[in-house]
Amino acid sequence: MSQTLEQQLSALKERLIEVNDLRSAGAVLSWDQSTHMPRGGAEARARQRATLSRIAHQKATDAELGHLLDWIGARSADLSEIDAALVRVARRDFEKANKVPADFVARASACHAQSYAAWSRARADDDFGAVADHLRANIDITHAYATYFAPFENIADPLIDAADEGMTVRQVQALFREIRPALVASVKVITELPPLDASCLKKAVSESDQLAFGLDVADRVGYDLERGRLDKTLHPFCTRFSAGDVRITTRFREDDVTDAFFSTVHETGHALYEQGVARELDGTPLGRGTSSGVHESQARLWENIVGRSRGFWSYWYPELQKRFPAAFGDTSLDAFYGVINRVERSLIRTDADEVTYNLHIMMRFDLEIDMLEGRLDVADLPEAWRAKMVEDIGVEPTDDRDGCLQDVHWYSGYMAGRFQSYTIGNVLAAQLYNAALRERPGIPSEIAHGDFDGLREWLRREVHMHGRALPPNAVIEKATGEALHAAPYLAYLRGKFSELYGLDLAE
Amino acid sequence: MSQTLEQQLSALKERLIEVNDLRSAGAVLSWDQSTHMPRGGAEARARQRATLSRIAHQKATDAELGHLLDWIGARSADLSEIDAALVRVARRDFEKANKVPADFVARASACHAQSYAAWSRARADDDFGAVADHLRANIDITHAYATYFAPFENIADPLIDAADEGMTVRQVQALFREIRPALVASVKVITELPPLDASCLKKAVSESDQLAFGLDVADRVGYDLERGRLDKTLHPFCTRFSAGDVRITTRFREDDVTDAFFSTVHETGHALYEQGVARELDGTPLGRGTSSGVHESQARLWENIVGRSRGFWSYWYPELQKRFPAAFGDTSLDAFYGVINRVERSLIRTDADEVTYNLHIMMRFDLEIDMLEGRLDVADLPEAWRAKMVEDIGVEPTDDRDGCLQDVHWYSGYMAGRFQSYTIGNVLAAQLYNAALRERPGIPSEIAHGDFDGLREWLRREVHMHGRALPPNAVIEKATGEALHAAPYLAYLRGKFSELYGLDLAE
Repeated sequence: MSQTLEQQLSALKERLIEVNDLRSAGAVLSWDQSTHMPRGGAEARARQRATLSRIAHQKATDAELGHLLDWIGARSADLSEIDAALVRVARRDFEKANKVPADFVARASACHAQSYAAWSRARADDDFGAVADHLRANIDITHAYATYFAPFENIADPLIDAADEGMTVRQVQALFREIRPALVASVKVITELPPLDASCLKKAVSESDQLAFGLDVADRVGYDLERGRLDKTLHPFCTRFSAGDVRITTRFREDDVTDAFFSTVHETGHALYEQGVARELDGTPLGRGTSSGVHESQARLWENIVGRSRGFWSYWYPELQKRFPAAFGDTSLDAFYGVINRVERSLIRTDADEVTYNLHIMMRFDLEIDMLEGRLDVADLPEAWRAKMVEDIGVEPTDDRDGCLQDVHWYSGYMAGRFQSYTIGNVLAAQLYNAALRERPGIPSEIAHGDFDGLREWLRREVHMHGRALPPNAVIEKATGEALHAAPYLAYLRGKFSELYGLDLAE
Repeated sequence: MSQTLEQQLSALKERLIEVNDLRSAGAVLSWDQSTHMPRGGAEARARQRATLSRIAHQKATDAELGHLLDWIGARSADLSEIDAALVRVARRDFEKANKVPADFVARASACHAQSYAAWSRARADDDFGAVADHLRANIDITHAYATYFAPFENIADPLIDAADEGMTVRQVQALFREIRPALVASVKVITELPPLDASCLKKAVSESDQLAFGLDVADRVGYDLERGRLDKTLHPFCTRFSAGDVRITTRFREDDVTDAFFSTVHETGHALYEQGVARELDGTPLGRGTSSGVHESQARLWENIVGRSRGFWSYWYPELQKRFPAAFGDTSLDAFYGVINRVERSLIRTDADEVTYNLHIMMRFDLEIDMLEGRLDVADLPEAWRAKMVEDIGVEPTDDRDGCLQDVHWYSGYMAGRFQSYTIGNVLAAQLYNAALRERPGIPSEIAHGDFDGLREWLRREVHMHGRALPPNAVIEKATGEALHAAPYLAYLRGKFSELYGLDLAE
């Protein structure tokens, strides 16, 4: 590499790391706000975060950064593979950021903040009418936002691409068509059976004991606690400040003592991904997970495919019983396994089981596309929601609080581009797990002995370490030898729930 | 006010708030580092904080900010009192920041970071020689730094002025001359008496119970917990992120169960000051305490004059006994009061009692001025330290760990400008308390009934609310009717310790 190219690369990295530092600082302020901040800090904190965002955006769209990217990009043949990836990703980020004027971003943020506040009140009051105009405004803003990225086939394509690079509405719809019939049929068959008794989950276990158990499992799974920590929040999340500081949070529910545990394992999956990104990418735009869908696959793989498996609990359930004899002493492993996997016609997405979960996602995706494309008027959303619920899940919400007001997504940001990642994650989790088993068939037996190293290291090597150096489709094809497809996921569900319910669920 | 002046003022405030937000973000990152950050986060966190500092410094020294200050300053007759104060303080900050080149600041920071690391090792190894060269470098850097602020009478004057505006080496020395003889004489007389038995403080009390007691007292004193919180750190501190978020921390010691308590009350004094600054100053350069010395006076007033008074404990000691019967059930209020105020020939500043504490400060101040002025060579510091200790406090450290390596100050920043604030704070605390009693003689009786509102509201009105709108000397003269002087402090010590030890300590 020539002296000058090296200098320009180093100038580029300095600028990129500065932007990263500002965003990481914003993430610390946000984490603090969710975990420890006294109530009185809210107003100034919002302004402080906005200031950091604004300065980060200015620096991320600085013309000098563009010139550096142009100059280096013209010499990309002389770059190492990793530097070439850095320049490719940095250019993608730069172009995306520069397509949207800063004052539009500020206007959109203000609009989303108002809409969020209105939603909080409307949801508490079960008053969809009070937030309908905000939702209309969000649709308009989403249209205006997407238009900066024209041309596209579908108005939501730019939003999907921002989260799941390489995906489009058409591809997401094709994936959904592949899985919906089997899911709808399975829910129908399973819910005709008598429901499982879940009362064993409504036990009093102290929050600190729950935290300790979750943390011990996370530790064994491979979450490095020298580079992370677990706190309590209203909504669980994972956040990365650096390679050396990736934190997770969990929540607690009185009516399900295992909720905190599965939230912890879910976030641990996210955290393993971030902790597993190659150290030398830290601080650069390559130093994080490659897409929302791939990220979600890591969370779902550990939460569901591992964490809700019989093998996992054949090892951990005796430990759970030992720690919480009053809560679980009288419940058998079989009963416990059944209850944590019970399939129900559920109203609430975040409480849904593995079979119904994606049905919740698909109807949201369909509705947001319909609203964006003008086929569904906001005034008709509550009714359309109820109709979809009855059609796909077979249950009808009696109010909008548990209906179209239940999720914050539409009311707190652009209208689309977020729900699809959850289903991509579920589908991909099974595809990745299958690929890992092909190479290392002993993984299920390792898990049943409390040993997660084989699976984790396979994921680290095939998925985690690349960070954003590989785009999502490249990661998927490299790790599994195939493009994203639903067959492994459908086979996984069929196998697991046929066995659990003593049925033969159709293909 | 003309339309244009109003616009320019608003542009000024926008820039100042942006700098404030960056610094507040840095403070959150620093707080997190001390309280919750996993070990692995240290390296990136240092870089993130440096990035925030660098950008804040760039924005604080931006020529456009100078032009705004010039333009508005030329029209200061048209400004409200508070806006005039804002422009005065902002100009002072701007000029100070602009006198020092950014690359010097970066070089000094790097040098201080190295020196701090060397000191940590040298202190652990009791090896002064290993850090002597770093100390020499810090002296040189301090010289170079001060020179940017020439002319001055004494090389340390710019450093003192930065912490305690309006004070000089000459004035600090005059204050010290006023109090040293009485302190030296008192220590001599008191320590000839048989020592008090402090074994009642070495009791096991759980950290969470200690925290809860400290927090209950802080709450009663008036620390608003909707706008604050208490955490555990190695070294206690108070930090302000905004008017709505002022946090404190405390430490725990096995050999003194009251240490966490008095640290909490000390930091509560700092926090009451920050929470008491007028809300409308928040986010501007006026929105914090006016100087280090005035800040320290608030901490010392609550910690010592209130928190170590007989009246205070006549209310709280029964509560302490009720909460910790095993630790304090057998100790009388009189014995407890004596022990928490016992005077000893101490080696360690941070453990020193009210009588010896300032002697520790004065010798440090003398030594740092001697080193800066070239009268004392770094190689001779350990011996000079021992000689001063014997002369003033009557005890000699057997190693440098408890001698000239005990405090981080000289090894982690510029060489002077920090120790004097502690003594100014002690002296001023008594002067302010006297002034409060003149107006509201019932305060001691209120305190003895667990009621702190009268004292706190007087301090809020006379000191806290002004923030930096009044410089320190103006605050002192407005609140007490006099310039800073030592007589009330000496009278306070004489009265308290004559009574405690049954002596008649000389004037």
